[in-house]
Amino acid sequence: MKNAVGRDIPEEVLQACGKRPYAGAYARDGEAYKKAAPVVRGYVNPKRSKLVSSIREALEKCGIRDGMVLSFHHHFRDGDYVVNMVLEEAAAMGVKDITICASSLGAAHDPVADLIEQGIVTGIQSSGVRGRIGEAISHGKLKTPAIIRSHGGRVRAIEEGDVHIDIAFIGAPTSDEYGNARGVGGKSDCGVLSYSMVDAKYADHVVVITDCLVPAPNFPPSISMVDVDYVCVVDEIGNPARIVSNVVRMTKDVRELMMADYCTRIIAGSPYFKDGFSFQTGAGGASLAVNSMLRPIMEEKQIHMGFAIGGITKPICDLLEAGLVRNIVDAQDFDLGAIESIKRNPNHYEISTSEYADPMNKGAFVNQLDFVILGALEVDVDFNVNVVTGSDGIVRGAPGGHPDTSAGSNCSIIVAPLVRGRIPTICDRVVTVVTPGETVDVIVTDYGIAINPRRQDLIDAYKDSGLPLKTIEELRDIAYSIVGRPEQIQFDDQVVGIIESRDGTILDVVRKIRPYSFEE
Amino acid sequence: MKNAVGRDIPEEVLQACGKRPYAGAYARDGEAYKKAAPVVRGYVNPKRSKLVSSIREALEKCGIRDGMVLSFHHHFRDGDYVVNMVLEEAAAMGVKDITICASSLGAAHDPVADLIEQGIVTGIQSSGVRGRIGEAISHGKLKTPAIIRSHGGRVRAIEEGDVHIDIAFIGAPTSDEYGNARGVGGKSDCGVLSYSMVDAKYADHVVVITDCLVPAPNFPPSISMVDVDYVCVVDEIGNPARIVSNVVRMTKDVRELMMADYCTRIIAGSPYFKDGFSFQTGAGGASLAVNSMLRPIMEEKQIHMGFAIGGITKPICDLLEAGLVRNIVDAQDFDLGAIESIKRNPNHYEISTSEYADPMNKGAFVNQLDFVILGALEVDVDFNVNVVTGSDGIVRGAPGGHPDTSAGSNCSIIVAPLVRGRIPTICDRVVTVVTPGETVDVIVTDYGIAINPRRQDLIDAYKDSGLPLKTIEELRDIAYSIVGRPEQIQFDDQVVGIIESRDGTILDVVRKIRPYSFEE
Repeated sequence: MKNAVGRDIPEEVLQACGKRPYAGAYARDGEAYKKAAPVVRGYVNPKRSKLVSSIREALEKCGIRDGMVLSFHHHFRDGDYVVNMVLEEAAAMGVKDITICASSLGAAHDPVADLIEQGIVTGIQSSGVRGRIGEAISHGKLKTPAIIRSHGGRVRAIEEGDVHIDIAFIGAPTSDEYGNARGVGGKSDCGVLSYSMVDAKYADHVVVITDCLVPAPNFPPSISMVDVDYVCVVDEIGNPARIVSNVVRMTKDVRELMMADYCTRIIAGSPYFKDGFSFQTGAGGASLAVNSMLRPIMEEKQIHMGFAIGGITKPICDLLEAGLVRNIVDAQDFDLGAIESIKRNPNHYEISTSEYADPMNKGAFVNQLDFVILGALEVDVDFNVNVVTGSDGIVRGAPGGHPDTSAGSNCSIIVAPLVRGRIPTICDRVVTVVTPGETVDVIVTDYGIAINPRRQDLIDAYKDSGLPLKTIEELRDIAYSIVGRPEQIQFDDQVVGIIESRDGTILDVVRKIRPYSFEE
Repeated sequence: MKNAVGRDIPEEVLQACGKRPYAGAYARDGEAYKKAAPVVRGYVNPKRSKLVSSIREALEKCGIRDGMVLSFHHHFRDGDYVVNMVLEEAAAMGVKDITICASSLGAAHDPVADLIEQGIVTGIQSSGVRGRIGEAISHGKLKTPAIIRSHGGRVRAIEEGDVHIDIAFIGAPTSDEYGNARGVGGKSDCGVLSYSMVDAKYADHVVVITDCLVPAPNFPPSISMVDVDYVCVVDEIGNPARIVSNVVRMTKDVRELMMADYCTRIIAGSPYFKDGFSFQTGAGGASLAVNSMLRPIMEEKQIHMGFAIGGITKPICDLLEAGLVRNIVDAQDFDLGAIESIKRNPNHYEISTSEYADPMNKGAFVNQLDFVILGALEVDVDFNVNVVTGSDGIVRGAPGGHPDTSAGSNCSIIVAPLVRGRIPTICDRVVTVVTPGETVDVIVTDYGIAINPRRQDLIDAYKDSGLPLKTIEELRDIAYSIVGRPEQIQFDDQVVGIIESRDGTILDVVRKIRPYSFEE
């Protein structure tokens, strides 16, 4: 069945996962649903301790068994030890058929690929997949298709009961013996624990894993003791050097600076650029440069940002310190500067990922966004964006908050070089639709800017701006003229991944990769 | 059927409410249950506004209809306007058969008694009932028995689905247009919104009512926008002068000071009085005096309080300022001093009532309590405490956190004068069991102190203390020798109130009052 972005979703996939095809970015607005709920056990007896001496004891006390869903967060990013630590122990106990429900999985989790080969891990649900896990998925090694969700979509899936977490493991820089856990204060600070908040509320069992036990109450807590069954103290929950980067890379690349300049002019020239505007940018070179480029314009026009949101980096914290940003609402920290800021600046707030981006709660921050700057692996002439599958068709990316912010914001800006090596970024048809074109407003490339025809208001706003406006087809043609029209990637029929829209409908599927063969 | 405190709970009551009889304070420890969940509607469309122009519009948009359960908090105490405002409008719309699920009801809500007479309000579930509502209950005016729960028990009942809230009305001193609501910052500050947090999470519809709309984001929020459907701005949500008292009454009553001295010596002489101890006291004269009496002992022995909890008053905030208390965890503010403190002192934290006292979550703060000082209307020789029915048998009190703190703490101390007028406080059998004797440790009166025989460790600890220790029977005998053995209050058979144990079992029932008649 063809969905609203023209993708053919096989009936058997829809039936197997009990999902509807994507019907438009806002199709489920106002739809009623009953929230999911965990099975929990009360601590009525005030004398019981939550402390366990090992991951194994935690797994035993939570009643680990074959087929369970275990959840994890990715605030420790490439420095995470928790996923491997828990899965190794589960494997050693002979547990099989585990589904991982993670907020993201990355290079730190390459060993999981071996557990997939062994049938110990048979399901993956994540907002990002990279490295060997992505290869294992694309080669059809999982028993069930991987489910890829946006950050907001993951919260929604848990809250709507699409996935039920049996045991949530929450690596925490600090915790007290009752399980009040925080993202700061230990030797492995990650700033916030936003991704885990929904896990703590909806998992049947919740285990806090920390390498820094602190006196109670560890307040204000990111994760409250009222949701925590067990607290396990280990030597190290992560490698601090890889949890955050010490310095943010400020680009000197001329092409990136040019695109940053275009983005800045798009923002400054829009009707949304006024006092109190809101903004999200990522950690890419061009995105980061926009922060510093906006500054003099904000100063000159006496325009303050109401709030900045998203993955937070030092450049935006600098604007907070300078008084140009009134509030930062923070669901993830990308560098040490951001972590220092949330420790110290009272206007820098931790939020839950539900507050950040869940489309089916009663209004997330992304709904209040004026501008977001996002990246892309591919953009097609319908403005659909792919940020998950690489040019070889293999899963190696993350929707993250991309579809959420794009759907919520007044002006979503995708910034990407027109070509990368031999690969055109703008193309006829993206391999995988991750963010539907309906929600994408402006494409900024080093060869020009395309505005979505759905946004005639924006096209009008920039008509005398001097910006190099082009149609998306013109950008595609330039790209093809440089690198040629790419050959289609060859896939088998087997569906190995499901790209879930943030609202839980099916946006696209990823098929098993086929070794390249020349056409006859 | 007789329950574990020897009260006969009629079978038909157990059947009608689907409850078990009370089986002991910790009988449900570790019992698994599935949490309840609301039916909600997602705000996918970022352009929709939550602002409504009137209470009526809010009621209409929430689909108000006969038989619904409406919830309210009592942070505005005697100054609350919200309950009456909403019920008047519902009555004007012709709605009938409303059940009020409130964290407490007091003198401000006397007009509700008229709505009970008219069949507009037919059910009351509350942690406290005073004034004309109590009289209406005791005279059998409700269609169904009132359900009286402790603060922790109310959260449990909502989380376990014993009561399902259709619409929660949350009066908030400040809110932004998205529903991020706080207990501070407006013209009717109440400090915290702890009681409402569970309502916001479990009600199908959530309406924030404020008299001070502030710029977004109103952070950090007590109630998050992700749970709020509508925001209604009204002229006044309460009478600030009655929300909190300006000055706390410091007692000069010699009898109260003597009892405070006893309490202080009980605390200071106990094995729990050491650095990091935790403490809750109420706002009564003797209780408050303990704060100042403890201070020199803490200073001399260099003992700091780890946390103070509960209904917060200025005297404990003064100890925080003085560095003698490390943290205050706050679920209710009783005076302006407490509100000023939570605005200003970074170690003064708002908590949810779930974190405060829910027995069936994974561990509330009451479980960590060393000492609590509580009041009593009556205490019987089994140490059962009544804080709900008056000497005339009429409902006019509040369990509040009484049963919760008593069950959770290492040492629960009940302080009360031995007699009040012609009424003995210590008696053979309390009219109504609200806090089971199993959880009560020490009774302090102006005629001596009784320690529960279950606590031989405490009896041993004070045997050489010089404190006037007596048995509970001795205290009763003294009381009876002063005022005589009271005549039994006369009740009809009709059950008009159910005293629910904090764990949801039935502790006792309240029967319809019968006009006094002389025995033949």
